[in-house]
Amino acid sequence: MTEVSVEAPNSSDRLALIRERLQGFARARDWGQFHSPKNLVMALTGEVGELTEHFQWLTEQESQGLSGTDLDDIREEIADVQIYLLMLSEKLGVDLLQAVEDKIDKNERRYPAERVRGSRRKYLP
Amino acid sequence: MTEVSVEAPNSSDRLALIRERLQGFARARDWGQFHSPKNLVMALTGEVGELTEHFQWLTEQESQGLSGTDLDDIREEIADVQIYLLMLSEKLGVDLLQAVEDKIDKNERRYPAERVRGSRRKYLP
Amino acid sequence: MTEVSVEAPNSSDRLALIRERLQGFARARDWGQFHSPKNLVMALTGEVGELTEHFQWLTEQESQGLSGTDLDDIREEIADVQIYLLMLSEKLGVDLLQAVEDKIDKNERRYPAERVRGSRRKYLP
Amino acid sequence: MTEVSVEAPNSSDRLALIRERLQGFARARDWGQFHSPKNLVMALTGEVGELTEHFQWLTEQESQGLSGTDLDDIREEIADVQIYLLMLSEKLGVDLLQAVEDKIDKNERRYPAERVRGSRRKYLP
Repeated sequence: MTEVSVEAPNSSDRLALIRERLQGFARARDWGQFHSPKNLVMALTGEVGELTEHFQWLTEQESQGLSGTDLDDIREEIADVQIYLLMLSEKLGVDLLQAVEDKIDKNERRYPAERVRGSRRKYLP
Repeated sequence: MTEVSVEAPNSSDRLALIRERLQGFARARDWGQFHSPKNLVMALTGEVGELTEHFQWLTEQESQGLSGTDLDDIREEIADVQIYLLMLSEKLGVDLLQAVEDKIDKNERRYPAERVRGSRRKYLP
Repeated sequence: MTEVSVEAPNSSDRLALIRERLQGFARARDWGQFHSPKNLVMALTGEVGELTEHFQWLTEQESQGLSGTDLDDIREEIADVQIYLLMLSEKLGVDLLQAVEDKIDKNERRYPAERVRGSRRKYLP
Repeated sequence: MTEVSVEAPNSSDRLALIRERLQGFARARDWGQFHSPKNLVMALTGEVGELTEHFQWLTEQESQGLSGTDLDDIREEIADVQIYLLMLSEKLGVDLLQAVEDKIDKNERRYPAERVRGSRRKYLP
């Protein structure tokens, strides 16, 4: 039997590697005890709140031309949201990409282009 | 054996396809006009709110044993959050997976395992 | 003139009555068991999410001219947020109006008018 | 004509005084330009996010026994949420206390005690 490092990635897929890193990160810090789905949903809320604070006083137009440290900070908040969403999906046994693909299928059936074109009324997922 | 195995597409390819579908979906409905980064952040908030409503009266333990239609509904809310996060990243020119990998790097430096083990105090990303 | 005018009840009295009604409402339904501060914060998130959904595709200008059923719906979401904020304060033993007055005092010291006038940069409570 | 200070309160009611202080605060800083209802809803989200961060890793039981600086910090976040909710109501012309009283009336009709007692299922406002 050859020795294998406990932390060696067992996948070449990028998202799978990210998931493994997140699991290893929490395990090394014994933080799994805090990561119930309920708590992870709250953590997601906290991060979306931080993301929102970057946008709340901007006009829509200003929000379209972000760069520099503003964008760097926002990029980091987006990463935090994504990290908690991955952790939540993992805990719940949800295949995140499959869930997204299924939801796009559903939205395509639910909002026929010819009926909702240009209207924000029909558009609440 | 020289045959190339029929592999599942990797996540980067799947994500690229998902991004294309989301762009086509908005274009066909002329909804791009509503999708400023500011508005997409608000849409993200709305979806996290819906996700939260599924968890607010559950105990942590109950949140760990979800199944059936509860889990189906939650899976869909998670997909909605992911969809808006992808659209937001796209609009801002943020490479989502790279942002996540960079943030995990940063968190690993910021929270040395031996110093924060088992403590929720140190742990606010 | 010595007659006591029939005044509208003052807001402190009205708030006290509202608090009593909310307590009675939860007690009659045996819902106090769900109302831990943690859960009430999640409920608050859910309601802010619903409120947000009414605004996410509006321009700022459109958000200033709301009326009719749109405004009626928004008025109800605002009430829901207020209700959970009152319940949360109650559970935590926080005097809500006093907390607000103290925070305004603090903000007045923290953001001297002459230094922050017209700038959104200085302005994150 | 006797001179009257521009900032002199014209009401003896506590909530009315708070509203006047908030208006004077924004006016003195020329911040009214940022306070569209849409933006105030986002600011509300940001504050609820900050509030949530205090609770996300706590058990429900821990959330019931808060004191000291934890509670002080939470009290301030609650004040921030209340401040933005007051500002939003003001901008929309919503009578906040009346909206709450009307919503409690509606909830009392909608959730008859004998039908929903002890059940979290029926309970989503």
